Amino acid sequence: MSLLTSWVESANAPDGQFPLNNLPCGIFSTAGGRRRCGVAIGDQILDVTALEQGGLLSVHDHPVFDRPSWNAFMALGPETWRAFRARLHAMLGKEASQADRQAWSGALVPQADAALHLPVETRGYADFYGCRNHAFNVGTMFRGPENALPPNYLHLPIAYSGRASSIVISGTEIRRPWGQLKAPDEAAPRFAPCERFDFELELGAIVGQPSEFGRPVSVAQAYEMIFGYVLLNDWSARDIQTWEYQPLGPFQAKATANTISPWIVTSLALEPFHVSTPERDTPLLPHLREPGPMLYDIDLDVLLQPDGAQHATTITRSNYREMYYSAPQNLAHHTTSGCPMEVGDMLGSGTISGTTRQSRGSLLELSWGGKEPIGLDGGGTRSFIEDNDTIVFRGAARGDGYLIGFGECAGKLLPAHADPYARGA
Amino acid sequence: MSLLTSWVESANAPDGQFPLNNLPCGIFSTAGGRRRCGVAIGDQILDVTALEQGGLLSVHDHPVFDRPSWNAFMALGPETWRAFRARLHAMLGKEASQADRQAWSGALVPQADAALHLPVETRGYADFYGCRNHAFNVGTMFRGPENALPPNYLHLPIAYSGRASSIVISGTEIRRPWGQLKAPDEAAPRFAPCERFDFELELGAIVGQPSEFGRPVSVAQAYEMIFGYVLLNDWSARDIQTWEYQPLGPFQAKATANTISPWIVTSLALEPFHVSTPERDTPLLPHLREPGPMLYDIDLDVLLQPDGAQHATTITRSNYREMYYSAPQNLAHHTTSGCPMEVGDMLGSGTISGTTRQSRGSLLELSWGGKEPIGLDGGGTRSFIEDNDTIVFRGAARGDGYLIGFGECAGKLLPAHADPYARGA
Repeated sequence: MSLLTSWVESANAPDGQFPLNNLPCGIFSTAGGRRRCGVAIGDQILDVTALEQGGLLSVHDHPVFDRPSWNAFMALGPETWRAFRARLHAMLGKEASQADRQAWSGALVPQADAALHLPVETRGYADFYGCRNHAFNVGTMFRGPENALPPNYLHLPIAYSGRASSIVISGTEIRRPWGQLKAPDEAAPRFAPCERFDFELELGAIVGQPSEFGRPVSVAQAYEMIFGYVLLNDWSARDIQTWEYQPLGPFQAKATANTISPWIVTSLALEPFHVSTPERDTPLLPHLREPGPMLYDIDLDVLLQPDGAQHATTITRSNYREMYYSAPQNLAHHTTSGCPMEVGDMLGSGTISGTTRQSRGSLLELSWGGKEPIGLDGGGTRSFIEDNDTIVFRGAARGDGYLIGFGECAGKLLPAHADPYARGA
Repeated sequence: MSLLTSWVESANAPDGQFPLNNLPCGIFSTAGGRRRCGVAIGDQILDVTALEQGGLLSVHDHPVFDRPSWNAFMALGPETWRAFRARLHAMLGKEASQADRQAWSGALVPQADAALHLPVETRGYADFYGCRNHAFNVGTMFRGPENALPPNYLHLPIAYSGRASSIVISGTEIRRPWGQLKAPDEAAPRFAPCERFDFELELGAIVGQPSEFGRPVSVAQAYEMIFGYVLLNDWSARDIQTWEYQPLGPFQAKATANTISPWIVTSLALEPFHVSTPERDTPLLPHLREPGPMLYDIDLDVLLQPDGAQHATTITRSNYREMYYSAPQNLAHHTTSGCPMEVGDMLGSGTISGTTRQSRGSLLELSWGGKEPIGLDGGGTRSFIEDNDTIVFRGAARGDGYLIGFGECAGKLLPAHADPYARGA
């Protein structure tokens, strides 16, 4: 597929993130206005709420866009998702009539004038561990390469349930957490600010359709349920996790914040970029096998910018094709017990690491547990995130003369509170 | 404290669960009506929604009761909770005027005519492991008594985040889940119905006030945030858990269902029943210490009734005073990382086991991993739950001539689907 040209000229820029091929879904507001649904096109936002209210766009027998999330639209299902995309292609494409252009151009809002908000209302959030390279790196650090992968790793997508209330939009400042820490040579734990705060480079799959209480869904059904993807930074307190995680898994180590990018890039926009999960030496049980390629070729970069630094250093270049398990496999596994999925649920992929040092998706891996600090462009090194560092994720699928951009997933780490229990501080 | 007598005569029955001292909060509906807030009193439900609409009861400048959850009321905060309780005490008590009685008696709905629904809308659900007896039993089975407790156990309340979409109301039938199972002597896992399905006897603490993103709350503040408690059955697939839980904790093993009782017994009603957590050999860090007693003396029974059996067998008699950590301690710990709590969040206590065999809060413990099946009154034995068994929890704090009853938390286990992926079956 090549670039679909639009009469919205900025959508045709060769390196633009939001060409007509993309059409990602976000929630925006302008001065004095309320949060509502919009679609990114070039440097504009198509105010689909205004179009719906003006009678120029209708996807259902009642309005669904004048809301602070895409949940109501997602609930309408894949046929509506496809019809909506087709309608936007027709109306924003070069072939649109002059009258249609004129009518719809009134619904374009410059992105520069808008604030972006969480695009989805999420109740269920699970974070997977689906990248074998990452699991191997972490396992090697703690148990050596022979015992790196847990025995279940090649048989099911390991995951834990996470905290939906901690999901925040790109740009939200993150406060370094306090927690119980205990080094191996310490006799007892202490309550102190986290000393090994990290990012994890992930994609979040947004579930757009529910499943039934007591009924698993197949991988093929799960594929149809996924509305789209966002960049996800699963901020991680490594030292808190070390002390707390046995026997029930990470809890406070993963509860400080989960930052997501504002635009949901739809599964439909990503269709040209399908790739397969790797060949498997250990075959999966039938219920977890994929009927076709369900990963995507998406370049993912991580940048770190210290406070006051002139520019950011790209510290990781990875790609979503590195995953061992795809989001539909994760979703199918999540329902095996009969656990009902809900519209708006998010499934984190797990840290996306390649096989080279430069493609590792966390500082834990990049600095090999802090033993091999990485260098920054402007000088200085990092083992873990330091106060006032900003971490930025970028993602793009690269087509023939166009990009499917994910926008940014950014967060600055503020210093820990001196006294976390002081009020009004 | 002794019985507060009411002009609602059924509330004065000596063994009644819902005297004027109790006033638990639920969501009910009657034929053709919508789900709304009500308060149990004797064998009646006080329709506070009708009172609010009739101008006879006002707790806020806009209506809060005509909703399918108590969240809006809980959000008003502890002062309103106290004022509401005082008003109900005055209006339902023996001292109420004849005119008041007449006005309010029109808002009484027989419980026999009402259906009960989930009382709270929960987004965040965490399940703790806060009973040392339970942790010791489980740890002894798997690692021997010397290594039974994990090293962190005496220092922090261990927990995992659970799945809010799986929370169901008492009476909901539960479907035996499928999952990946692998016995130690099997070479590879298989996908099959769970063979070791269990209950866990817990209380769920309902969080009625939010906390700030990035700010922990103290144990004292956490105490004030807890609106009340429900009975909670944390249905558990032991064999699924064994295979899946390393390294990120239980996931599908705990996602099939979490059944709760319909009435939230408020912290205010439980105040006369305060007891302390145990004396500690290993002192807690200061941020987790309790300023006063924060457990409650609540008797808890578990009954098992096979399909077609004449009556149920009481298989467990336990008490909430057996906990090592209280709900306010759990809640305070949950916020240490800056994780924001939300109105409606639920914190499971963890399985509540006493020190005797008869007081163990799960079949895993009662049958010691299946090695010592327990006998049932009508004949037969159980190691784990069998198809069509019904599990019922009951709870009551026992005052001087009155009870604070929790109602029932019941669920019947249906056989697994023959083919979980068949549709329309």
